[in-house]
Amino acid sequence: MAVSTGYRTLSGGVTAARGWQAGVAACGIKALTAGAAALPGEGRQDLAVVASDTVCDAAGAFTTNRVKSASVVIDQLHLRQNRVRALVVVSGNANACTGAQGFRDALQMAKLTADRLDLEPSQVLVGSTGVIGRPLPMEAVKRGIAIACAGLDPEGGRAAARAIMTTDTVPKTHALELELDGVPVRVGGMAKGSGMIHPQLATMLAYITTDAAVTPGWCASVIRRIADRSFNQVTVDGDSSTNDTFLLLANGAAGNPPVEPGTPAAERLEEAVVQVARELARAIARDGEGATRLITVRVTGAPDAAQARLAARAVAGSNLVKAAVHGGDPNWGRIVCALGYSGAELTLDRLTVAVAGLTVFALGTGQDPDLEAVRRAFEQPEIVIEADLGSGEGAAEAWGCDLSEEYVHINAEYTT
Amino acid sequence: MAVSTGYRTLSGGVTAARGWQAGVAACGIKALTAGAAALPGEGRQDLAVVASDTVCDAAGAFTTNRVKSASVVIDQLHLRQNRVRALVVVSGNANACTGAQGFRDALQMAKLTADRLDLEPSQVLVGSTGVIGRPLPMEAVKRGIAIACAGLDPEGGRAAARAIMTTDTVPKTHALELELDGVPVRVGGMAKGSGMIHPQLATMLAYITTDAAVTPGWCASVIRRIADRSFNQVTVDGDSSTNDTFLLLANGAAGNPPVEPGTPAAERLEEAVVQVARELARAIARDGEGATRLITVRVTGAPDAAQARLAARAVAGSNLVKAAVHGGDPNWGRIVCALGYSGAELTLDRLTVAVAGLTVFALGTGQDPDLEAVRRAFEQPEIVIEADLGSGEGAAEAWGCDLSEEYVHINAEYTT
Repeated sequence: MAVSTGYRTLSGGVTAARGWQAGVAACGIKALTAGAAALPGEGRQDLAVVASDTVCDAAGAFTTNRVKSASVVIDQLHLRQNRVRALVVVSGNANACTGAQGFRDALQMAKLTADRLDLEPSQVLVGSTGVIGRPLPMEAVKRGIAIACAGLDPEGGRAAARAIMTTDTVPKTHALELELDGVPVRVGGMAKGSGMIHPQLATMLAYITTDAAVTPGWCASVIRRIADRSFNQVTVDGDSSTNDTFLLLANGAAGNPPVEPGTPAAERLEEAVVQVARELARAIARDGEGATRLITVRVTGAPDAAQARLAARAVAGSNLVKAAVHGGDPNWGRIVCALGYSGAELTLDRLTVAVAGLTVFALGTGQDPDLEAVRRAFEQPEIVIEADLGSGEGAAEAWGCDLSEEYVHINAEYTT
Repeated sequence: MAVSTGYRTLSGGVTAARGWQAGVAACGIKALTAGAAALPGEGRQDLAVVASDTVCDAAGAFTTNRVKSASVVIDQLHLRQNRVRALVVVSGNANACTGAQGFRDALQMAKLTADRLDLEPSQVLVGSTGVIGRPLPMEAVKRGIAIACAGLDPEGGRAAARAIMTTDTVPKTHALELELDGVPVRVGGMAKGSGMIHPQLATMLAYITTDAAVTPGWCASVIRRIADRSFNQVTVDGDSSTNDTFLLLANGAAGNPPVEPGTPAAERLEEAVVQVARELARAIARDGEGATRLITVRVTGAPDAAQARLAARAVAGSNLVKAAVHGGDPNWGRIVCALGYSGAELTLDRLTVAVAGLTVFALGTGQDPDLEAVRRAFEQPEIVIEADLGSGEGAAEAWGCDLSEEYVHINAEYTT
C-alpha cells in the first residue's frame, strides 16, 4: 500500500539521518525498580539519549488512556514550544501512577539532560516504559544521563534501540533515503513494543527522526495520518498502556528547500515516514510477547479508510483468530466473526475472505478450499489474511501476532 | 447488589418452574459436523427441546455482531408474534455463515419441533452453538427432535443444560422461588458459555423460564436491563459471537395475578430474574476456557451505571489483568491501566483500588500494601477487585476469568 520504490534502505535507525546522535547507559533502573528485576537483560543498557545538532520541528501522538505517564504529560507540554533538540528514554520503569513525585522526576530527567547538552529543559522530551507505580530511581537515572550524554555518537542508533527494550527480544530499527528536490534526505527510526500493544499505541515507544527541512508545523500536520497507517494498526493484546508515544522530529540538516504542506515533496516525505513507521510497526507485531508468527490483515472494499482500519484491527486483534493461527488452524469462521463485531459495515453476501491467497469465504458462505493448503499457509512465519468487504474504496492493513502459551507465561510471571 | 433475601434456591434449572418440560437427544451433530468432532463429549447429548404447557410472554436479547446465525434471525422473527411455547437447541454446529440453506434449516428445526408438539412453527424458537460455516446435518437433527420431544419431562432441566454444552466443563443451572402477592412463583434457567464470551453476549446461550403470570410485553420491557446487569458483564475473551442469545419466557402457570410493569411485584420479579441471570453469568465466567479462577470486578463511584459497567468490563476483560491473576501476581498497575482505557471518566486522585479488601492504590499512587497478603488473595479460586472512581453513584459488577496456557491450547486445537 505504501509507495516503496525510490527508497534506499539504510542501517542506523534513529541516527541514520544527518545531525543526529545517540548515547546509552546501563544504570540499573530495572534492578532498582521493584518488580522490574524480572525483566530480561539484567545489567544491560536501560537509558538512551538522542540529540539533534539543531532545533527540530517536532510532533507527538500519545496514548488515549486516561491514565497517562508523567513522561507523556511532560512531552505534550514541551512540544507546545516546538523547539525540541533531544529526548531521553528509560526502560524498566514506566513512571506512571507515581503521583506528584512522578512529574517532578520526569521534569528532572529533562533538566538533567538539558544541563549536559546546554539546552533549555523544554527542549528535551522524555520517555519511559516498564513497571507502573514505582518511583524512578533518580540517582541512577542521573548517573545514566551523564554517561549517555558523554557518549553521544552518530553511530549510536542501534544501541539506543536496544536500550529502550523491555520484554522485546530484538531491537527494532528502520531507515531509508530518498531524494527531495534533488537533495538526498534520510528518515530513520527505532521502536520498542512487545506486550500491551494495541491500536491506540499501547506500551509502544516509537521515535522517527529525519534530516529533512520542513516548514514549522509540518510534523504536527502529518503525525495523526502516519500513526493511523502504522502504529495504530498494531495489536498484540487488548490493553492500551499509560506510556505510548510516537514522536516525529525533523532537524533540517539535509539542506533541502523546506517542505511545505500540500506540495508533491510533502507527499513524498510523508510516504517515506509512513514506510519507516510501517516497518517498525510490523517489527513490533512480529516480536509480540510469545509470538511465533506475524499476522498481516489487509482489508479492501470498506465504505471508507476508517472502517477498513476498524475491520483490519478487529481481525488482527481477535484472541480466537490469534490462537487459531498459533495452532495452524484455518478457522475462517473466526475471521468472519471478528469482521462482524468490528463496527465496520458488513454485508455477508458481498464479503470475500482469503488466507494466503486461497479464498475461504465468498457469496455468504464457506468455499471449502483445500484445507491442507490453508493449513500449510497458517504454519508460515507470516500469514496474510485478506478481506474484501465489497462496499467501497476504503483500504487498510493491520498487524498482529499469534497468541501462544508463552504469552500467558510471560504475563503471569512479569511480577509486581 | 441484587436483593437475594426471600429467595428459596431450587434445583431443576429451566424446568424448575411449573408447566415446563425438557427433553434431550444424542444425535451425533458433532461427529457429523466437520471440525466439531474435536469437541468433548463424543456421543453425548447434543440437542435439547424445552416446552411450556401454555403460551408464554417472551423476549430475547441477541448478539450485536453484524454476522448473525440463522437461529438468531429466526428467533427475532418468531418473537414478534409473542406466542412462543417451545425452543429447540443444538450444540456442535453454529448454523452461522451457512447462506440460504442455513435459514431453511433453522426454519425446518422450528417446523419439525412444532409438528411433534402440535404447534405453529412460529411458536418455536431455535438455538445453535458450535462450529461456524458448516451445514446442519438435518437428518440427524430430525431424529434428535423426535427423540427429545418424545422424552419431554418436568425433571429434564439438568439434562438440557448438559446437552447445550460445547467446551463447557460443567452444566450451568440456577433456580429459585419467591412469593408474589402471596403466590409462590419460580424462576429457573440454564446457560452455556465458555469460550468467545464477551460483553455483548458472545457464544453464550442463556434461557430463563418462569411460571409467573405477566402482562404481555413485560419480558420485552425488562430483558435489556437484566442482560446489562448479568450476561453483558461476562467476559472470557474479546470476541463476540454470531449466535449469542438470551431468552426470557413466562408461562403464567403459577396463577399469580399478572404482573404489571411499574408495580412492586414487577420489581421483585425482575430482581429474581436478575439473580438467576447473575448466577448463570458467574458460572459462565468461572468455566471460561482454561479458567482456574473467577474474577469479580466491582466498580463504584462512577458518574453513572453505564460508565461503571464499562470500567468493570475493561478490568475483567484485560488480557494483562487476567494473566496476572493466573500468575498470582498482584499487578495493580494493570488494573489502573485498564480503568484508564475503559472509556469511563477517571480522575486518578479520586481513584481507590482494592484487591480482596486490601487497598493497593489511592491518592494517585500505589499504597504499598502487604504484597504477600495480596498475592495470597490472587491465589484464591475467586478474586474480588474493587475500584471506587470517587465521581458519582454509578455501580456495576463484571465477571471474568484468568487467562491460562490452557485457554491458548484449547483455542489452538479447536479445529476447522
